Amino acid sequence: MNQEELYKNIVKKKSFLCIGLDTETDKIPSFLGKSKDPQFEFNKQIIDATHKYCVAYKPNVAFYECAGAKGWESLESTVRYIKENYPDIFIIADAKRGDIGNTSKMYARAFLENMPFDAVTVAPYMGEDSVTPFLTYKDKWVVLLALTSNKGADDFQYHSDDGIRLFERVLNVSQRWGSIDNLMFVVGATRASMLKDIRKLVPNHFLLVPGVGAQGGSLEEVAKYGLTDKCGLLVNSSRGIIFADSTQNFDKVAGEKACETQLEMAKHLADRKLI
Amino acid sequence: MNQEELYKNIVKKKSFLCIGLDTETDKIPSFLGKSKDPQFEFNKQIIDATHKYCVAYKPNVAFYECAGAKGWESLESTVRYIKENYPDIFIIADAKRGDIGNTSKMYARAFLENMPFDAVTVAPYMGEDSVTPFLTYKDKWVVLLALTSNKGADDFQYHSDDGIRLFERVLNVSQRWGSIDNLMFVVGATRASMLKDIRKLVPNHFLLVPGVGAQGGSLEEVAKYGLTDKCGLLVNSSRGIIFADSTQNFDKVAGEKACETQLEMAKHLADRKLI
Repeated sequence: MNQEELYKNIVKKKSFLCIGLDTETDKIPSFLGKSKDPQFEFNKQIIDATHKYCVAYKPNVAFYECAGAKGWESLESTVRYIKENYPDIFIIADAKRGDIGNTSKMYARAFLENMPFDAVTVAPYMGEDSVTPFLTYKDKWVVLLALTSNKGADDFQYHSDDGIRLFERVLNVSQRWGSIDNLMFVVGATRASMLKDIRKLVPNHFLLVPGVGAQGGSLEEVAKYGLTDKCGLLVNSSRGIIFADSTQNFDKVAGEKACETQLEMAKHLADRKLI
Repeated sequence: MNQEELYKNIVKKKSFLCIGLDTETDKIPSFLGKSKDPQFEFNKQIIDATHKYCVAYKPNVAFYECAGAKGWESLESTVRYIKENYPDIFIIADAKRGDIGNTSKMYARAFLENMPFDAVTVAPYMGEDSVTPFLTYKDKWVVLLALTSNKGADDFQYHSDDGIRLFERVLNVSQRWGSIDNLMFVVGATRASMLKDIRKLVPNHFLLVPGVGAQGGSLEEVAKYGLTDKCGLLVNSSRGIIFADSTQNFDKVAGEKACETQLEMAKHLADRKLI
């Protein structure tokens, strides 16, 4: 999927919502525990109930990996289910990978070749040769960490060389490695006011914005500072949608929460005259 | 395992060798292809042939992950095999993980709780709360990226704030999160001359040094600048040992290569009067 196709889906669905599938086994409604693969069964029902309101899903790989080989099967089943049933939806492996070239190549193969993910989140610490192996796949994306939503972002991401902070250097340097059609950046919603400055550095790249909802970020602020003429935003919500309810109605309630967010997003898209 | 126990093993074996199990499926000798789990079978034979000469193994998770659930089973079998047969050997998951707190907690569970790894390599970009969940397990370690061995290290790791380069800031700040008994740092052997300066910042922490062998680093330089009174070094070699030969003798040749390296290490330990 390239930027234009992603934008078309956003306009069609009046949504720039990405739903994070941070499917913590302990939080899955207990009655699903009897199914063969509770993690996949939960995801399937969440996906069926929410797919109309979102343009992307973002399985958080850690929540599968912590169940070992079985968890990897649940992850694979989930990604294949989305791609087979809702092929227009963009799927991000939230994996935060990144290693020397020959190793990043293997991670890229894991997510972009052996599973039908459209994108992988990558950590920039090890530089160019740790990122570019993910960029060799046509129509697949790297989502590179720039300014994250957590408290620890303060430890290193603001480290400033001659007035250029580390996250700004990441934004500047990495633009040489990819294009607006295969590279986007993570910018946390808890730092929404920073989006104004960030947009000066990356006026046309898509940004993946986590931290709305459970982590306290504001969608209104993100839209105000982050929207571009091609939307340019994927805003992620995880726990606030998928674990909004733990009864037999969990999927219906997740659908309602996703719908609420979509309607708010439609308003921002309309204000910006994109729909 | 704490620092003292690790040091005792080093003295006992006269070795600070870590063998990287970067078990690329395509490079496994073809006659092993008939076994049920060629990746594990290869590792098992390599481990049996080399365990006398090393104090640590470092499976590179990407090389298993790229085979999906099956690869995770090979990884699990490998780690359990080492722990059951050679319990004194330190096992590092070379995973380069790191995410917001609730997610790093899941990665920590994957490697330190569900599998018997002693340590995980972690990327520092997201700061304290991305690292500390790995430090809550007794006698388990974080191996934090500081200065890596690849070319891309130049992109961000030398970013300098008031004379303090990013990798130096990582070394300074992260020492508050752990101790010499649960925190070590990755410093690439291709930057061996930097070890002198790095030792001023972390005089007593263990360093995991990749890049000797295939990547071109020199063991002599690493020993010269990096050894401490408690050794303080784990030097990794992967391809140079495990893929030294692709015939029926692959394990024997790997053992010989590991032995050669161990003998060289014994000389450095003796020069330093540690054995």
